[in-house]
Amino acid sequence: MLYDVTVVQFTKMLNNLSRILDKGEAYAGGKKFDAEVLLQSRLAPDQFNLVRQVQIACDTAKFAAARLTGKEAPTHDDKEKTVAELKARIEQVTTYLRTFSAKDFAGADERRVTTPRWNGKYLTGAEFAVQHAIPNFYFHLTTAYAVLRHNGVDVGKGDYLGDMPYKGP
Amino acid sequence: MLYDVTVVQFTKMLNNLSRILDKGEAYAGGKKFDAEVLLQSRLAPDQFNLVRQVQIACDTAKFAAARLTGKEAPTHDDKEKTVAELKARIEQVTTYLRTFSAKDFAGADERRVTTPRWNGKYLTGAEFAVQHAIPNFYFHLTTAYAVLRHNGVDVGKGDYLGDMPYKGP
Repeated sequence: MLYDVTVVQFTKMLNNLSRILDKGEAYAGGKKFDAEVLLQSRLAPDQFNLVRQVQIACDTAKFAAARLTGKEAPTHDDKEKTVAELKARIEQVTTYLRTFSAKDFAGADERRVTTPRWNGKYLTGAEFAVQHAIPNFYFHLTTAYAVLRHNGVDVGKGDYLGDMPYKGP
Repeated sequence: MLYDVTVVQFTKMLNNLSRILDKGEAYAGGKKFDAEVLLQSRLAPDQFNLVRQVQIACDTAKFAAARLTGKEAPTHDDKEKTVAELKARIEQVTTYLRTFSAKDFAGADERRVTTPRWNGKYLTGAEFAVQHAIPNFYFHLTTAYAVLRHNGVDVGKGDYLGDMPYKGP
């Protein structure tokens, strides 16, 4: 379950985000302005811009998988400046997430998870996933979406959620 | 696990949202404008306003608990017009969520979940929770936060995430 709600679902959402960024780039192209304007946009002057929102969404997914399974996450130097570079960053993270399987998450619920910012304090894996990683991931993903929506990009809930595996008639 | 990641965590986040709305009201009071201006605000002209974002966050939590356990959710008539009324709506939903226990979620993973909009199609409970209810819930909560943030209310990530149950030194 922790595997599904982090690795599998974060991969789906990051792919959705990549397509949302495509829509942003297409919008900039259609209106003949530089897509970097969107990437530098934010909803408040003391808020991270769109580039940083995407980077943090990527890092939240990467660190969730690594920390819940006791692995070392790859580092990224946060130098992305274009939509293509952000999409490549997303691709690197989803490629990394594909290296995990449900088996890696055996005992993850009870694993002690910490981060460099927590001064030795820890959460259980279940607490970390449910109260920290998941809400943080969706926060930055939705904020990235909101920056584009606020700037007129034609994105909707379907772009955010992606396809559902509906069954039945 | 499904119980923790929906009922328990949604309750925590709705209480955080209630305090974020308090901050919005205090900000309006300090600047001597009517808090209803914030409640009617949105990030794009064709986006739901703040009132509706809060209502949908509430409904997403309510329906997630009800549908995952095969219960009937209480109805709400979406007539809130003030911060106090929105906070009361949140309180009604968290009170409803408190009527659930982990035991109610036995078999929820495999339960067929549908909504009136899906024309008879369904998802398993696990799919519904992970791919639909959770991303939707955080989407509307973060959008509500973003509307206030965009309008100058001094809210930060800590207000959104709430307290963490840190353990250790």
